[in-house]
Amino acid sequence: MAERAVFFLSDQTGVSAEALGHSLITQFSGQNFRETTLPFIDSEDKASAAVKTINAASKRSALKPLVFSTLVQPNLRTIVKQAEGLHLDLFDAFLEPLAAELNASPTFVLGGAHGMSDIGTYMRRIEATNFALANDDGGVSRDYDAADVILIGVSRTGKTPTCLYLALQYGVYAANFPLTEEELETGRLPPFLTDQVDKLFGLTIAPTRLRQIRKERRPMGKYSSAQQVRFELREAAKIFRRYGIAHVDATEFSIEEISSRILESTGVERRVRP
Amino acid sequence: MAERAVFFLSDQTGVSAEALGHSLITQFSGQNFRETTLPFIDSEDKASAAVKTINAASKRSALKPLVFSTLVQPNLRTIVKQAEGLHLDLFDAFLEPLAAELNASPTFVLGGAHGMSDIGTYMRRIEATNFALANDDGGVSRDYDAADVILIGVSRTGKTPTCLYLALQYGVYAANFPLTEEELETGRLPPFLTDQVDKLFGLTIAPTRLRQIRKERRPMGKYSSAQQVRFELREAAKIFRRYGIAHVDATEFSIEEISSRILESTGVERRVRP
Repeated sequence: MAERAVFFLSDQTGVSAEALGHSLITQFSGQNFRETTLPFIDSEDKASAAVKTINAASKRSALKPLVFSTLVQPNLRTIVKQAEGLHLDLFDAFLEPLAAELNASPTFVLGGAHGMSDIGTYMRRIEATNFALANDDGGVSRDYDAADVILIGVSRTGKTPTCLYLALQYGVYAANFPLTEEELETGRLPPFLTDQVDKLFGLTIAPTRLRQIRKERRPMGKYSSAQQVRFELREAAKIFRRYGIAHVDATEFSIEEISSRILESTGVERRVRP
Repeated sequence: MAERAVFFLSDQTGVSAEALGHSLITQFSGQNFRETTLPFIDSEDKASAAVKTINAASKRSALKPLVFSTLVQPNLRTIVKQAEGLHLDLFDAFLEPLAAELNASPTFVLGGAHGMSDIGTYMRRIEATNFALANDDGGVSRDYDAADVILIGVSRTGKTPTCLYLALQYGVYAANFPLTEEELETGRLPPFLTDQVDKLFGLTIAPTRLRQIRKERRPMGKYSSAQQVRFELREAAKIFRRYGIAHVDATEFSIEEISSRILESTGVERRVRP
């Protein structure tokens, strides 16, 4: 099937252009997209280089490239638009109505959205990340007084990456504690967790998915056996019920979605906006 | 100054709506925005609840709310648009030209962009995160053969969060190694690093900023003294020069920007698109 080039153009990292474009193109199935991000287009030379890259892709295929663009500076947008392709430009579409409503002119200054404009924000994300690392997997420290949320669940339900994502994206202080034989067999949580029961949040996952994930780590043995996996998930569910712990089934969710659902369910406030 | 409510509406996590909206509103200075994300609007009830929330905010202020929306389903978009506010709708603006170019109809299916549609993608991000954790700060393991990139720099230049971000966002295998007295005084890197010199990438930072960051951790002593900080950064710069190691000055950059610049500079390919 013929390939269609998709470009995400940005004068910054390209994170916004990718988010914008990706949520749109995933609405069309049966397409063969080849995605490329062109970040840091912050000069006329780089804008001209982007035009060349896009035109080269256009020559290689019968299908017109898609160009998602979040360039701020008008002169660079003018250059980029010379490229062969369907241009979907965030600033073209929205800047004018926004300026009219705000009764103000855009500054056209780069770096407002993702720049390190504020050392306070930077420090909060770093400190939250350090907190997640120190309080990972039952943790070197168990500084649960300072935690916003404490994730619990059996091994390989995604606790660690979720905590790190919560820290990096939202500046949230997230600890995690793995449910092991001791908790699963007694059905009881240790006092340092029950003292913080309002901060606990559970992760669970379908048995077949958990087996698949565990087998990637250890293909053989009890750890990934059907019986063990079912036992652990069943007992974890009982613990969630016994203590009234909100939880989410991570089977069909990405790390972003799990993180976002945790904030929604717990009401924990983000400490930063990236 | 009067506050203006800004809402980011999404049937998913809200990450796209936030990225979209944030890059636009940061183009206007001197405004007093109060940002709220309303995620997981995936039913008519939730859409109606969002309308109520927005209208309540509208009543509290003389300024019309801004509503950035990335709802996929047409019926939910119709409901949400009844809310009082300036509506900036990603799908309204771009879905039609895109459908025309692709000669296809949108599926209106939720979760294409950030969902865990693919266990392969999920596993790659998790494995990259585990790699970053195992190879953090000189590391338990020094599995540098498997690394895509190895960040080096003095303490508190942002190596750890950058590695974790590279893992979570891009699935890239990023290790990091701190430059300590031994390297800084001899001006030499150990053999297990020089063997991988093509993978090395340096982080540096302005002395005043580094002092500020270090003082947050340890307010007193040599660690955050002007003399020590200048010495370390100067010697690290010499090491970067001696071995021809590309590097970036993290002073004015966010974690996203540093990560994106590392990919751009090294040519390391991302393993996933979130």
